[in-house]
Amino acid sequence: MARINDNYLKLKASYLFSDIARRIKDFQAANPGAKLIRLGIGDVTQPLPPAVVTALHAAVDEMAKSETFRGYGPEQGYEFLQDLIVTHDYATRGVSLAADEIFISDGGKQDSGNIQEIFATDAVVALMDPVYPVYVASNVMAGRSGAADASGRYAGFVYLPCTAENSFRPALPDRHVDLIYLCYPNNPTGAVLRTDALKTWVDYARREQAVILYDAAYESYIRESDVPHSIYEIEGAKDVAIEFRSYSKMAGFTGTRCAFTVVPKALQGRGPAGEAVSLNTLWFQRQSTKYNSAPYVVQRAAAAVYTSEGRAQTRALIDFYMENARIIREGLEAIGLTVYGAKNAPYIWVKTPAGLGSWEFFDKLLRDAHVVSTPGAGFGPAGEGYLRLTAFAQRAQTEEAVERIRTKLAR
Amino acid sequence: MARINDNYLKLKASYLFSDIARRIKDFQAANPGAKLIRLGIGDVTQPLPPAVVTALHAAVDEMAKSETFRGYGPEQGYEFLQDLIVTHDYATRGVSLAADEIFISDGGKQDSGNIQEIFATDAVVALMDPVYPVYVASNVMAGRSGAADASGRYAGFVYLPCTAENSFRPALPDRHVDLIYLCYPNNPTGAVLRTDALKTWVDYARREQAVILYDAAYESYIRESDVPHSIYEIEGAKDVAIEFRSYSKMAGFTGTRCAFTVVPKALQGRGPAGEAVSLNTLWFQRQSTKYNSAPYVVQRAAAAVYTSEGRAQTRALIDFYMENARIIREGLEAIGLTVYGAKNAPYIWVKTPAGLGSWEFFDKLLRDAHVVSTPGAGFGPAGEGYLRLTAFAQRAQTEEAVERIRTKLAR
Repeated sequence: MARINDNYLKLKASYLFSDIARRIKDFQAANPGAKLIRLGIGDVTQPLPPAVVTALHAAVDEMAKSETFRGYGPEQGYEFLQDLIVTHDYATRGVSLAADEIFISDGGKQDSGNIQEIFATDAVVALMDPVYPVYVASNVMAGRSGAADASGRYAGFVYLPCTAENSFRPALPDRHVDLIYLCYPNNPTGAVLRTDALKTWVDYARREQAVILYDAAYESYIRESDVPHSIYEIEGAKDVAIEFRSYSKMAGFTGTRCAFTVVPKALQGRGPAGEAVSLNTLWFQRQSTKYNSAPYVVQRAAAAVYTSEGRAQTRALIDFYMENARIIREGLEAIGLTVYGAKNAPYIWVKTPAGLGSWEFFDKLLRDAHVVSTPGAGFGPAGEGYLRLTAFAQRAQTEEAVERIRTKLAR
Repeated sequence: MARINDNYLKLKASYLFSDIARRIKDFQAANPGAKLIRLGIGDVTQPLPPAVVTALHAAVDEMAKSETFRGYGPEQGYEFLQDLIVTHDYATRGVSLAADEIFISDGGKQDSGNIQEIFATDAVVALMDPVYPVYVASNVMAGRSGAADASGRYAGFVYLPCTAENSFRPALPDRHVDLIYLCYPNNPTGAVLRTDALKTWVDYARREQAVILYDAAYESYIRESDVPHSIYEIEGAKDVAIEFRSYSKMAGFTGTRCAFTVVPKALQGRGPAGEAVSLNTLWFQRQSTKYNSAPYVVQRAAAAVYTSEGRAQTRALIDFYMENARIIREGLEAIGLTVYGAKNAPYIWVKTPAGLGSWEFFDKLLRDAHVVSTPGAGFGPAGEGYLRLTAFAQRAQTEEAVERIRTKLAR
């Protein structure tokens, strides 16, 4: 038998969401009448905005006619979409980018999972704790870690604990690292970094010649004016940062699949002789060799997000989810729970009541309120003592979930 | 600066199709009046089949309503599509597969580029020559080769020359290999493997405990009845083979993006202690960590291919392209050229006239007939002395290209 990539065997067998799925299944088998409300997984529920639907139909019609049919598109994505991103997502924030610094893809998960391929296998990786599991697993699979310990931390990674004590904004690493995964607005804690805090990271990366992999998938949920939407709003960031964005939560694209990654041409890596190598060129090589960009109709759908109707409709979508976030936050605070996030992010990060661990509180919510959440410990050991709720359910479900938690937990 | 993945620097800087693009650009700048006909790149030109268009519109409408909206789908793809594949692509050929042996994706390029991730870095890779460049580059980038020599061959790979002498069906490797990339119907030569020949490979893989990565992207172009459509038609192949399929050339999906990969549950790799490890499980881990499957609307589009209208329409599409192939083959044979392929594949593999190299013949066709082709040498040193033409152009263009070649080359 052919030798496998042994690094896969280091992955903790029980993946967070499958573990949760198993507990839900067991609960439902024992309680067939219980009507569950799911505030666990971060998946949207509202339909695609009308402007996006119209654009999809129009693009499908183009594919139906010889004269307008599209085969292979540019591997980096269509310029019509790159240009809209440059103009609307960046120029409006004072950030100047060129179209060929934007790489269109079918998902932020893919991009943040694949980006590590262009770096050395012995690169030292820094990860927030709690953390989006894809950053961790993709680096384990690539061989950048040793084995996991009992808490789920892998040897060789540098973990940056994010807790209430540091307002979920970790201290700089206490040693040199090469790659730093930052996610703000943060999944799962809902925290944001203001300009000064983000500048500290850019300065660190410049000093240490590290690369920041900045996941801004929830950028469109930022409400407060002094929070940067892009890391490139920080001077000097183009020399040290790759940024990930997605239409998933911004425009309801979790099942439609479109995202993009920014790799500035100023950003350099180091080759074997110490020479500078353009990371934009390497990522282009990676994408043109192993990828073909998102479907034409999907790129047209994403472009519709930038029309005036599209902008108004996606804004309304985000307002809707943020109202859910407010309802959950205020509802839980009203019964004395300590709640973080939910102000610039669709995630509500709840401190578990005294004496309850993450999984115990998860089980209690499931058993008593029939509400599905995500235990904070599932995102890393520093998430122990917390629980994540999401703002993506229907309004009536969100209200009922809060009401159930209020009445059942108070008992 | 962070250390890069040095393996990228081994890639030959000039990628085949960018080299061709440059020559075309230079020619057009010098000859602004010339009307080029492109028979170079393997991209389809006919619109999506009406059944697919109807399905796309219907799926878009589902995404527009709360009750039918779809967010994240199963990471391995929707069961409705897996089931159709199992029934129509495999059961009809006497091959029994389960739905969870099918992994839906957005492209055969992606799948055949990513599959190597689940194998050891020191796996010995066998490649056909000429070869689809993605198999090569993805393994170079992963560190399975040394540097390229002047001919473009990378140290450490085992090359399997495919020439007219062996009817483009290479001999078995003369040493042990771990991974074997086979592509039949072949891109670029258009050759096929009949049952006996394919059985030889399955037997070799079983004997050597190797894994065959079988690219059947052009399966739907097979016309002759004694040619297997799937490697699993060979007894014992489920223990040794992964198969790649795509809707790109089968249903005009090059810009719509859908494909699938079959990883049988019987297929095992070997872990560090010699233990058997399911490759189906490893590929599921890879895909669920770094991928989210194809868009819902695209999976619905692919499902429409299996309706009775869809089957009739895709058959007509393939008939159309195969008629182009016949026109090119017979046209070139009529002026004394030796032509291979074009009978069970949309590729025409032309022997260059005596004394002309691949690139010289490419330049001659461009200069004299204003026809764009692909030099065989671009697919590997054994492709020297050949040229690839594709059957994917419009009918009138195809006929005119043949006419031009006939009149201009005979001069």
